[in-house]
Amino acid sequence: MTTESKPRVVIVGGGFGGLNAARSLRKAPVRITLIDRQNHHLFQPLLYQVATAALNPSDIASPIRRILRHQRNVEVLLAEASAINLAAKQVVLTDGVIGYDYLIIATGATHSYFGHDEWACFAPGLKSIPDALEIRRRVLFAFEAAERDPDIERRHSWLTFVVVGGGPTGVELAGALAEIARHALAKDFRRIDPKQARVILLEGSDRVLPAYVPVLSEKAKTQLERLGVQVHTGRVVTAIDDEGVAIGPERIEAKTVLWGAGVAASPLARSLGVELDRAGRVRVATDLSIPGHPNAFVVGDLAHFDQEGSLVPGVAPAAIQEAQHAAANIQNLLSGRPARPFRYRDKGSLATIGRAAGIAQIGRIRLSGGLAWLAWLFIHIFFLIGFRNRFVVLFEWAWSYVTYDRGARLITGQLDLHSQHPSATVSTPPTV
Amino acid sequence: MTTESKPRVVIVGGGFGGLNAARSLRKAPVRITLIDRQNHHLFQPLLYQVATAALNPSDIASPIRRILRHQRNVEVLLAEASAINLAAKQVVLTDGVIGYDYLIIATGATHSYFGHDEWACFAPGLKSIPDALEIRRRVLFAFEAAERDPDIERRHSWLTFVVVGGGPTGVELAGALAEIARHALAKDFRRIDPKQARVILLEGSDRVLPAYVPVLSEKAKTQLERLGVQVHTGRVVTAIDDEGVAIGPERIEAKTVLWGAGVAASPLARSLGVELDRAGRVRVATDLSIPGHPNAFVVGDLAHFDQEGSLVPGVAPAAIQEAQHAAANIQNLLSGRPARPFRYRDKGSLATIGRAAGIAQIGRIRLSGGLAWLAWLFIHIFFLIGFRNRFVVLFEWAWSYVTYDRGARLITGQLDLHSQHPSATVSTPPTV
Repeated sequence: MTTESKPRVVIVGGGFGGLNAARSLRKAPVRITLIDRQNHHLFQPLLYQVATAALNPSDIASPIRRILRHQRNVEVLLAEASAINLAAKQVVLTDGVIGYDYLIIATGATHSYFGHDEWACFAPGLKSIPDALEIRRRVLFAFEAAERDPDIERRHSWLTFVVVGGGPTGVELAGALAEIARHALAKDFRRIDPKQARVILLEGSDRVLPAYVPVLSEKAKTQLERLGVQVHTGRVVTAIDDEGVAIGPERIEAKTVLWGAGVAASPLARSLGVELDRAGRVRVATDLSIPGHPNAFVVGDLAHFDQEGSLVPGVAPAAIQEAQHAAANIQNLLSGRPARPFRYRDKGSLATIGRAAGIAQIGRIRLSGGLAWLAWLFIHIFFLIGFRNRFVVLFEWAWSYVTYDRGARLITGQLDLHSQHPSATVSTPPTV
Repeated sequence: MTTESKPRVVIVGGGFGGLNAARSLRKAPVRITLIDRQNHHLFQPLLYQVATAALNPSDIASPIRRILRHQRNVEVLLAEASAINLAAKQVVLTDGVIGYDYLIIATGATHSYFGHDEWACFAPGLKSIPDALEIRRRVLFAFEAAERDPDIERRHSWLTFVVVGGGPTGVELAGALAEIARHALAKDFRRIDPKQARVILLEGSDRVLPAYVPVLSEKAKTQLERLGVQVHTGRVVTAIDDEGVAIGPERIEAKTVLWGAGVAASPLARSLGVELDRAGRVRVATDLSIPGHPNAFVVGDLAHFDQEGSLVPGVAPAAIQEAQHAAANIQNLLSGRPARPFRYRDKGSLATIGRAAGIAQIGRIRLSGGLAWLAWLFIHIFFLIGFRNRFVVLFEWAWSYVTYDRGARLITGQLDLHSQHPSATVSTPPTV
């Protein structure tokens, strides 16, 4: 069989799902084209560390073509998919069209402002490296502005940081922010005391990290409070502007608001013309294919897969398992065997809360504090792609652990001292 | 003497000059205010390594307030100086005014397009971290675009890189680009061969690195050619557009043009109302003060200082010596002693050309090749501020030396696949 006559597999998205699908097909007799609009794979679980200036972008991201450079049956294209034409078996790019025999869609999710997209410019979310750098810029600039501002009220508002959403992203961000103020910046200013900064975490439901068992949510709350974070549960944000947030009649004056709530599926799903769930995810068949289209699969955060009445969660291990399964099903179909149903195996969940604190839920085992943090640290570094990254990240971590220092404390980008925030152009949520 | 009654020293600029001036005054009975429009000090000699994806921004930059955090007589302000009022002894900020008793201006230089500012968007220069990231983005994107472009002519143009200017910046950039194409990217593409990329260095005078003795310029040219760089001397660029450069009637089609030529003094000098040289530098008195204003000093690239008929060069060691001297003169004036004349001691020059090659001129000693490169490496790492930076940079270097890999190969920023280059908004030359 010549290369040209081999079936073509197109994978859209180079996250955990897309990358693992490509790797699982490394020995398959197919030509693979992996499309992503970024040139890099991003290790999203550590993105909050870039936002809080502990890590550099390149510590947690690798060029997709470097990761796959030795896999000869893959080509990587820097391109943006705007639609999928299932009938014609084509991926429509913003500047072209690409045909496929088999398709894996792995474009993931972005943050959702629950219908309030106008909040995006006041409360940036955390999904991409530009997002992380924008958050870093705002946080560091807020301390600079407070140092210069002669007005007590405004200074207070510059030193108030509100994090909306008590899921893993919100909890990790809030914990890291509290540490920056208490330790990393403590001695660097002359007119303000960064330790006076307030970090407020707002969660709509009655507890933080609601995906965990209640006892661990309680532990997480205690650990956050020990770091100095004010945790408010049962508070639904009703308005956000450039001066703060409103929770019904109540207002919090805060120049810096960060968004850790809400997930919306990649808008690419809307072009499929198939049934989506409320969050815009594709309701996939038991073999992960799109109903009626046995050669097109959806994996990762974009897939809605019910297992025994509950939704498979939007986490990296689920995306990886689904990607491997979809790849195996493509190989089944290629050999004339039927596609097999998917089954998610939950290997546990971990969350971190500042330095040396965290919670873990692995089957019946529940951990909290230092042990959970250590488990988190080693699992995350182990899964970082590429030895170099692992080594550098471990060193940066050890360094910041010992010194409390945050090495990547640069305000980059164009600085406009007259705007409320250093960058007048605010990154809008990525649309993948 | 209370703090409030101490004389106030204002330093404008946090580069090598400003930072060393502040440090030299650490025991002086003064209140120092250091103003910079960036929050970080930048180790400019290694900026081309960020542009060519070998180092991360935070490897070569440190927050100014962190560097000075233990020096209690300094406060650091993130602010932009728009003018100096020598008569009123005031620095005018874009959002305020600050009075001084003694002044040190150290705002340096930026690149100059020799009156062709319209070239800036086609050929970015290299003076700041945003500049370096913009160059990185263009270079990496060019290879991605070549991989996707079906047209042979255009592919050739995407794979042609022109560097204008054969000074240290141009030479270092050209050498690093040739290495990226030959080694770092060699195996990552399927349709193009990055080794086919052409790197062309254009210099207007008759030799590269004209600040060195002719025999070393010749050595540098040979080393560049060994790396695969095409060196053309005696070529003055007459036009640049988004498709290439013109040298009189001759044209080179190149989608990526980088600017390493021309230096113009910071525009702040024009607000002084004193005599400037052709490049906009302040002609300082023998004690480095502004003629007629014995309490206001200019140091670094912004100062025009003649010594035995030749200009003190715009290099870091000169800026540091001048800063220390201006600080000493302020202490002299404070104690009622006269200010003393400055004298520059040339300790030698070093330039690097890709891995394991370079030239050095130290008094009568002339080195080239591996030994010059080693000298360059250790001197530069030694002068990096902060132990952490030194350690990380050394590791990154060793890693990329052994593996030929470039770890920071990320295209960040908003990607617009339809524009000629990934970012439609091109960074303009910094104005401070």
